[in-house]
Amino acid sequence: MPDNLFADLPAPGTTDEAFTTLVAEPGLIIERIVSTGQASPPGFWYEQPEAEWVLLLSGEALLRFEDESEPRRLLPGSYLDIAPKRRHRVDWTAPDSPTVWLAIHRRIP
Amino acid sequence: MPDNLFADLPAPGTTDEAFTTLVAEPGLIIERIVSTGQASPPGFWYEQPEAEWVLLLSGEALLRFEDESEPRRLLPGSYLDIAPKRRHRVDWTAPDSPTVWLAIHRRIP
Repeated sequence: MPDNLFADLPAPGTTDEAFTTLVAEPGLIIERIVSTGQASPPGFWYEQPEAEWVLLLSGEALLRFEDESEPRRLLPGSYLDIAPKRRHRVDWTAPDSPTVWLAIHRRIP
Repeated sequence: MPDNLFADLPAPGTTDEAFTTLVAEPGLIIERIVSTGQASPPGFWYEQPEAEWVLLLSGEALLRFEDESEPRRLLPGSYLDIAPKRRHRVDWTAPDSPTVWLAIHRRIP
């Protein structure tokens, strides 16, 4: 069987998010992230030098951009592109089932 | 609501696969492909100059490499990386429900 993004999920109640690098090439990283209820620390904003395209595969999350008043609700299939340096944070992820993300980080030439 | 890969699916019985480009940058294309029962034409093999990372999101497919004796069965969450020029074809996709793929084509520096 091929590899599967829903295999080897962390157990419920795991403290930390789980990051798995799937592809790593110059200027490109594809990774799986599994959240089990975590959110970004209060007041923390990601501000990344590279662009990040993100897809939610299972679970549910609230992702917030600093320049928007309301968080965006992500459900399975939801995707969005985060421009370099656009400040964002994860306000909430589902506490009762794994939230599986695919993230594609890339340096735009 | 954010964009969703399961929105705007082609109607059942659609003749052709549906391709939607989500990100297009130098050396990188992210696209959604929706199959509704199609397969590669008999005897046809894809042989691409760029690498392709592919993820099946819904439905089911049989993907075959010329250098393997059996096709690989892909279910939701299945992913694999297709090296440049590795000959492959889609032997089958589910006829009764949409098979949604995410494909990441990239030129490896």
